[in-house]
Amino acid sequence: MSSREVTSKDNRKIVGLVVDDHIATLTLDDPSSRNSLSREMMAQLQKALNDIAADADIHVVIIRAEGPVFSSGHNLREVQGMTGDGTLHELFAQCSILMQSVVNLPQPVIARIDGAVTAAGTQLVASCDLAYASDSSKFATSGINFGFFCTTPGVALGRNVSPKQAMEMLLSGDFIKADRAMEIGLVNAALPAAELDAHIQRMAKNIASKSPVVVKMGKAAFYKHLPMPLDKAYDYASGVMCENMETRDAQEGLTAFFEKRDPVWRGE
Amino acid sequence: MSSREVTSKDNRKIVGLVVDDHIATLTLDDPSSRNSLSREMMAQLQKALNDIAADADIHVVIIRAEGPVFSSGHNLREVQGMTGDGTLHELFAQCSILMQSVVNLPQPVIARIDGAVTAAGTQLVASCDLAYASDSSKFATSGINFGFFCTTPGVALGRNVSPKQAMEMLLSGDFIKADRAMEIGLVNAALPAAELDAHIQRMAKNIASKSPVVVKMGKAAFYKHLPMPLDKAYDYASGVMCENMETRDAQEGLTAFFEKRDPVWRGE
Amino acid sequence: MSSREVTSKDNRKIVGLVVDDHIATLTLDDPSSRNSLSREMMAQLQKALNDIAADADIHVVIIRAEGPVFSSGHNLREVQGMTGDGTLHELFAQCSILMQSVVNLPQPVIARIDGAVTAAGTQLVASCDLAYASDSSKFATSGINFGFFCTTPGVALGRNVSPKQAMEMLLSGDFIKADRAMEIGLVNAALPAAELDAHIQRMAKNIASKSPVVVKMGKAAFYKHLPMPLDKAYDYASGVMCENMETRDAQEGLTAFFEKRDPVWRGE
Repeated sequence: MSSREVTSKDNRKIVGLVVDDHIATLTLDDPSSRNSLSREMMAQLQKALNDIAADADIHVVIIRAEGPVFSSGHNLREVQGMTGDGTLHELFAQCSILMQSVVNLPQPVIARIDGAVTAAGTQLVASCDLAYASDSSKFATSGINFGFFCTTPGVALGRNVSPKQAMEMLLSGDFIKADRAMEIGLVNAALPAAELDAHIQRMAKNIASKSPVVVKMGKAAFYKHLPMPLDKAYDYASGVMCENMETRDAQEGLTAFFEKRDPVWRGE
Repeated sequence: MSSREVTSKDNRKIVGLVVDDHIATLTLDDPSSRNSLSREMMAQLQKALNDIAADADIHVVIIRAEGPVFSSGHNLREVQGMTGDGTLHELFAQCSILMQSVVNLPQPVIARIDGAVTAAGTQLVASCDLAYASDSSKFATSGINFGFFCTTPGVALGRNVSPKQAMEMLLSGDFIKADRAMEIGLVNAALPAAELDAHIQRMAKNIASKSPVVVKMGKAAFYKHLPMPLDKAYDYASGVMCENMETRDAQEGLTAFFEKRDPVWRGE
Repeated sequence: MSSREVTSKDNRKIVGLVVDDHIATLTLDDPSSRNSLSREMMAQLQKALNDIAADADIHVVIIRAEGPVFSSGHNLREVQGMTGDGTLHELFAQCSILMQSVVNLPQPVIARIDGAVTAAGTQLVASCDLAYASDSSKFATSGINFGFFCTTPGVALGRNVSPKQAMEMLLSGDFIKADRAMEIGLVNAALPAAELDAHIQRMAKNIASKSPVVVKMGKAAFYKHLPMPLDKAYDYASGVMCENMETRDAQEGLTAFFEKRDPVWRGE
């Protein structure tokens, strides 16, 4: 069981990264700012994701947070200082690249939520492949309360839930509870807080036990074919299946199945 | 508190419009025809929506109905008279423009349903941004029972619910109950009839209390980015966020937040 | 009540087809292979679907299975023999054509599930217009356990359920129960096993009682407009509505409605 910690070059480390047994755990660790997605927080998250993308030893990623707020979204003090000087474009470009880096990361990303999530925090949860929340967690796209519609969070939210369900959150700014978030597809499950970590660890270990090269191939293909018309999607997906079947790991998987033993992946 | 009524030029007014405290309430008021979307009803609705679109004093719209039927869809007597003479094209063009006017209206539109809804009536509910129904309400796309598949209602329905859920309604013509309509995303909530109006008033007042210019910007952007691929959606949405942040109302919202006071929107 | 049986030319018939009172029942009948979608099974299914498409007397199709497994997906022994020799492309092309034949079949297709469904079996269920499952049924996209991500099943699954719900199945390979499959939109309903057939027969008879020419027109239009932008979808759907209204069956449906009698469809 390998364990290591990646330290940011920044003076204050507000994103923790621990890798243990092929599972990377990223921690938003700036509870005094309610884990706001400040430019520094986003830079450290981006750096960590870039490192993870390049690390074939990591098979799955968990994003969790310190403190009672998973993330409050953009840092409003920082945002206030940016209006009028052109740097807002940089801020939203940085954030959009970050969110797409989660979607495009080779490894699956699981959000672990135990607390409140707002605005771009909800966008981060919606951008993850999977999400599990404690029963007491709650989610909002609350920008509208402060004069800005959560349009970029709505990109991720609108691809998770139905339009009326997204619009209710975006227009009202109101929180929804974890069980409602599960009903509408924003999280996979709402669980008692005491069971949250065990549940996520089981799922993470399960995914980490699959062939990482095959998971990578499959995750990328899923998001690529999703917006295609059906015939184009099948043409593309059939090609990916053939590539997949020709990997050594698929051959091993089939052989192991017929030999009634566990497969031994080589990640190729 | 301002209150005024817009009278239709038509002899018989079958669409009521009352504006009270920035909330416009549109009433389908032809219960003897089960609020059928006759050409006259659609013309009056279109006129009212056009007036609302041009009225910056209106922040949110509620569509409700008189009588036990919210709307039965197209007026079948009228439809019967149109086959073979080319006016059917005008009828469906008028209806499609009307439904898209709801989607494209600057203000959010809330459907308030307490009763039965069928065919193009269900299309109208599906076209609204939000919808709340009493527990005893029920929804169908029943054209198939009379020899016409609800293809145009299916456009709106298919963008609210999953394909199997839409196809079950479209192929069977059967009613679904309000709680099922909530489960599948056709309405936001099913509520006891006694609580329906209070719930909708709370939601309408909540939305009316936001900056109308920001709500307008956000609603339009949501429906525009929804069908885009992810990267294009983020490029577009990031641009909208920047525009939004440069509004006076966003500046005011941020300032009010830091001064711990309620914002005073100027609608610009 | 007409009843007939179509016999396959193959030595061993593993797809049964019975037509009774306009309802075709297709049976996957290879329980010893867990109804695997072998090339032979797919060929017989394709042949049956082609025959059904050409048979105007058939108004609706039910797909059911013999044995405790609805379908286990591709035949892994067959797949293992194909790697490296180029025939994998043929296999996935055959499967993709088959799945799209279900979607594009003129008649609605109802999946009747009472048991386990995995991999391309789940893809077949997801490809049907409607699906009803017994409470004890369960669904997985389990390829990932054997080194191949269910990318082609994910095409159909991802068009039935939300991305996180699809990804949980695809990444974990875990089974979900019938009630969860209903919640997420993979099946229309989960029912006690004792009620399953009666429920499906009611639905099949209901659909069979509609005008088949109108059902055909409507089913095709639904899947065609679904990926279109809203304005294009309405232009297209309005044209289809006009065509539909000009059919004799629509005229008959309207006349019967006003004469308060049952319509007599002529299928034109």
